[in-house]
Amino acid sequence: MLPDALDKVATLLSRFPGVGRRTAQRWAFFLLTEPESFSEELETSLRQLREHVHFCERCYHLSQESLCKICRDPLRDAQLLCIVENIPDLMAIERTHAFDGHYHVLHGALAPLKGIGPDKLHLDSLESRIEDAAIREIIVATSAGVEGEATALYLARRLAHTGVTLSRIAMGIPVGGELEYLDDHTLSRAITGRLPLG
Amino acid sequence: MLPDALDKVATLLSRFPGVGRRTAQRWAFFLLTEPESFSEELETSLRQLREHVHFCERCYHLSQESLCKICRDPLRDAQLLCIVENIPDLMAIERTHAFDGHYHVLHGALAPLKGIGPDKLHLDSLESRIEDAAIREIIVATSAGVEGEATALYLARRLAHTGVTLSRIAMGIPVGGELEYLDDHTLSRAITGRLPLG
Repeated sequence: MLPDALDKVATLLSRFPGVGRRTAQRWAFFLLTEPESFSEELETSLRQLREHVHFCERCYHLSQESLCKICRDPLRDAQLLCIVENIPDLMAIERTHAFDGHYHVLHGALAPLKGIGPDKLHLDSLESRIEDAAIREIIVATSAGVEGEATALYLARRLAHTGVTLSRIAMGIPVGGELEYLDDHTLSRAITGRLPLG
Repeated sequence: MLPDALDKVATLLSRFPGVGRRTAQRWAFFLLTEPESFSEELETSLRQLREHVHFCERCYHLSQESLCKICRDPLRDAQLLCIVENIPDLMAIERTHAFDGHYHVLHGALAPLKGIGPDKLHLDSLESRIEDAAIREIIVATSAGVEGEATALYLARRLAHTGVTLSRIAMGIPVGGELEYLDDHTLSRAITGRLPLG
């Protein structure tokens, strides 16, 4: 019914997460209505992404150089480290502008049932980094789910011998949140994690 | 914060209709986690879409040949024509399997306020097609909005001299629809368009 070349583009686009067949087809039409330069640009940028973007060899963030923009930034505190599970988490923290240290991206969280043990995360390099860069403090910003919590506990045990100050990002009620509608776990964490007032 | 090549891909993907910056970025990450062959394939298919897909010279559907798959299909009724505004509409009709004639895609509808007059639609070619192919019947399947209706009325007037049987797709309550929740216009069309029962 549709030309094969259009079908092929739609099939590939429908593999993007959260994209259905119908939407992908609509985009294929959209590509046909745009000036050819748009699809040419997209092609070039896909190739450049594939050829030039790799992981930073120090923190495993994305980078076009051997060290990423964050690791190369002389204004950031190189002795303060934030451990995150993945790059979208890193970016969420960057958007807050509340952190000016360096990162260490694990690219996963401990999940024994999925076969993800400590050896699958970038932990050896983390330990040598702590020594080499004289890291002062580490904020463990893994997610608040079971796997992220397990990873945080594991890190606490494994890094205990280094003497580095370790902290975990706070869990509690979101800003503007109503207690009434909050789930029990979060509320309970908010109570146990209470801070002195005034 | 992110490598330029990744930013560039995200920027281009965010131009797709209905796609926001955050989603586009998530896809750029997705491309990095997929095997390189995926992005290579996408690149190739974009180029092929651009280079090989054009409009059918008879009906203005999409095609990789001078005539589209539908126009080339010997099993379809070449004397029955369905006029649609655009290709997604054509495809919606194809999905029903309720029509086995040929199409004529106007690529628009009359909209004088947007500067779309009869000269912007593929109407001259429609008239010559009616003569050349000895068209027997034409179903006007433009949309049920103001512009689609205006186009249908215009077509009725303009094609009156050809003697071809003209019909308009029916408007009424959707299958499974409750009268109570239907808008007044549709219900009123359903009443005026009533058909003999039994």
